[in-house]
Amino acid sequence: MFENKEQSKTPITDLGEFGLIKHLTNANKKVNATTVMAVGDDAAVIENTQEQTLISTDMLVEGVHFDLAYAPLKHLGYKAVAVNLSDICAMNAIPSQITVSLALSNRFTVEAIEELYKGIYLACDTYGVDLVGGDTTSSNAGLVISVSVIGQAKAEDVCYRHMAKEKDLIVVSGDLGAAYIGLQLLQREKAVFEVNPNMQPELEERHSYMLERQLKPEARKDIVELLKKMDLKPSAMIDISDGLSSEVLHLCEDSSLGCRIYENKLPIDPQVVNTAEEFSMHPSTCALNGGEDYELLFTISMEDFDKIKGNPNMTVIGHMTAKEDGANLVSSSGDMLPLTAQGWSSIEKTE
Amino acid sequence: MFENKEQSKTPITDLGEFGLIKHLTNANKKVNATTVMAVGDDAAVIENTQEQTLISTDMLVEGVHFDLAYAPLKHLGYKAVAVNLSDICAMNAIPSQITVSLALSNRFTVEAIEELYKGIYLACDTYGVDLVGGDTTSSNAGLVISVSVIGQAKAEDVCYRHMAKEKDLIVVSGDLGAAYIGLQLLQREKAVFEVNPNMQPELEERHSYMLERQLKPEARKDIVELLKKMDLKPSAMIDISDGLSSEVLHLCEDSSLGCRIYENKLPIDPQVVNTAEEFSMHPSTCALNGGEDYELLFTISMEDFDKIKGNPNMTVIGHMTAKEDGANLVSSSGDMLPLTAQGWSSIEKTE
Repeated sequence: MFENKEQSKTPITDLGEFGLIKHLTNANKKVNATTVMAVGDDAAVIENTQEQTLISTDMLVEGVHFDLAYAPLKHLGYKAVAVNLSDICAMNAIPSQITVSLALSNRFTVEAIEELYKGIYLACDTYGVDLVGGDTTSSNAGLVISVSVIGQAKAEDVCYRHMAKEKDLIVVSGDLGAAYIGLQLLQREKAVFEVNPNMQPELEERHSYMLERQLKPEARKDIVELLKKMDLKPSAMIDISDGLSSEVLHLCEDSSLGCRIYENKLPIDPQVVNTAEEFSMHPSTCALNGGEDYELLFTISMEDFDKIKGNPNMTVIGHMTAKEDGANLVSSSGDMLPLTAQGWSSIEKTE
Repeated sequence: MFENKEQSKTPITDLGEFGLIKHLTNANKKVNATTVMAVGDDAAVIENTQEQTLISTDMLVEGVHFDLAYAPLKHLGYKAVAVNLSDICAMNAIPSQITVSLALSNRFTVEAIEELYKGIYLACDTYGVDLVGGDTTSSNAGLVISVSVIGQAKAEDVCYRHMAKEKDLIVVSGDLGAAYIGLQLLQREKAVFEVNPNMQPELEERHSYMLERQLKPEARKDIVELLKKMDLKPSAMIDISDGLSSEVLHLCEDSSLGCRIYENKLPIDPQVVNTAEEFSMHPSTCALNGGEDYELLFTISMEDFDKIKGNPNMTVIGHMTAKEDGANLVSSSGDMLPLTAQGWSSIEKTE
């Protein structure tokens, strides 16, 4: 009665390691002029520019950073690349090349890894970066993905964490908290997937923004380009992977300063506000401690305020203070609370 | 009666991820002038030279690439770095920076990871490279180590795999097969360790060279430097990680050539010859298919032969031929056999 669409399932052993790498990198093409040699030798070769080279690396582990019960492999491949590119963007630099290493258990078929690579290549296309190398190996446990990313920037453009100045404005790109709510939605649906692992989740349209933020985050390369166009160099910059509070505290610590963040300035999407209610969470908590938003957090001199004023991509959420003043949050009701990276219990929604 | 020396065992959770990274990288110092920013920001920053940048990455997985029953953590850290540096050396380039990502299960203590890092730092010191970044994360399964390495070389010095020419001599550095015999020795001892995991192996002095080759291999940066001093640029180069046969076949395939390798030219240490007997193995099989020697395999023009003649670090083992002639091994008895990467059954020791 029902046609059961059988997917072709080729064991990885049919190709072997070298065969698999060749198979996956066949369609690989270079888009950056600086890529001299991509995959296919002992190392990739990159032409040096008059700029500086930046390198960052991140490892994603199954069961820790992702759950294949609800993260489609293509999205996972995209996300693994995007979150790494985000680190280069957070230095005010432009990513140009990546390497990808995978450890795979034998439960993964060639077709599954092709899906993962589709996402990896889509991210490469989207961001104009070249896949130039990597390593594929077996694993006794789950899937481990390690991505390294190379980028370039002029020495005078590189933004470090430790260069914020007192009275600098604290700015955040985009909006916050959506990725965290997306994770809550997926975890709620997971029970359904577990009954039938082949079942597609029926998630509601009104949740689509939050799910996309969680499953397919973007690196804000566009903000780096926008800042350049605005002729605006942030004094310090970091990306928001662990939650706004944690990242603001990094800027404070590394710059030996304090800060004041205003709760009512936090940019939060209305969908996040509505959905947080369903989980009895305060939207500000999601924005402050949720993490995985991959927005950029940066500081600018007050004189530069006119450059960003009214820009819908950037929101001033506070300012840097002297170290002695501490790192504080001014709540919507006007209370001043110490900013902590562990969560902000006093604004937990109780009604 | 016996004092049981208790090692301090600090759970990683006592420090947290940021604390652990800080703890491990506290002693980190920069030795390369090109290292502008090492650990401590979203990405490392490297000054560009007039040369080209090379990047390579490798992932080591517990239970696949190493067995903690016999690989001491310090050696493992050293090896994880050395085998990656070897890939940069195989391009005739000098490594300058590394990043290290770790996935760790909670059975690892802070002290255990310190041991691993001691090995990582020792390799950094030995080879003059800077640890500039990485990622430390938890794992539900074993230990996964991913290392990326950056190197530099003048464009005209970079040696690719695909540039070998017909009649070029095939040269190998050092000697082959010892790492494989080292692995056999360790596996034989493993049963002893399994009875008492705290017991130190009592391996024999006469086996020390092979054990060291397996547990603490070196990258042949010295050969890259020696080639420069000799004013000798190989036409093609690769490092021997998967066994000589496999690597020679890569050179043949990528250069669209054949080759002839002479069994009686293979450089094999006398200890390997003796110990292979104990395992009823033919020493040549170990040299051809053993792997993990991390020696350099390269091709040079015949006119350059005088430059390497008599050099104890380099052995001519054959020459490149036309593709139609195939990839062949001339055995000690004068038989011509096709070279295969899977093993060379016809010379398996049978007596």
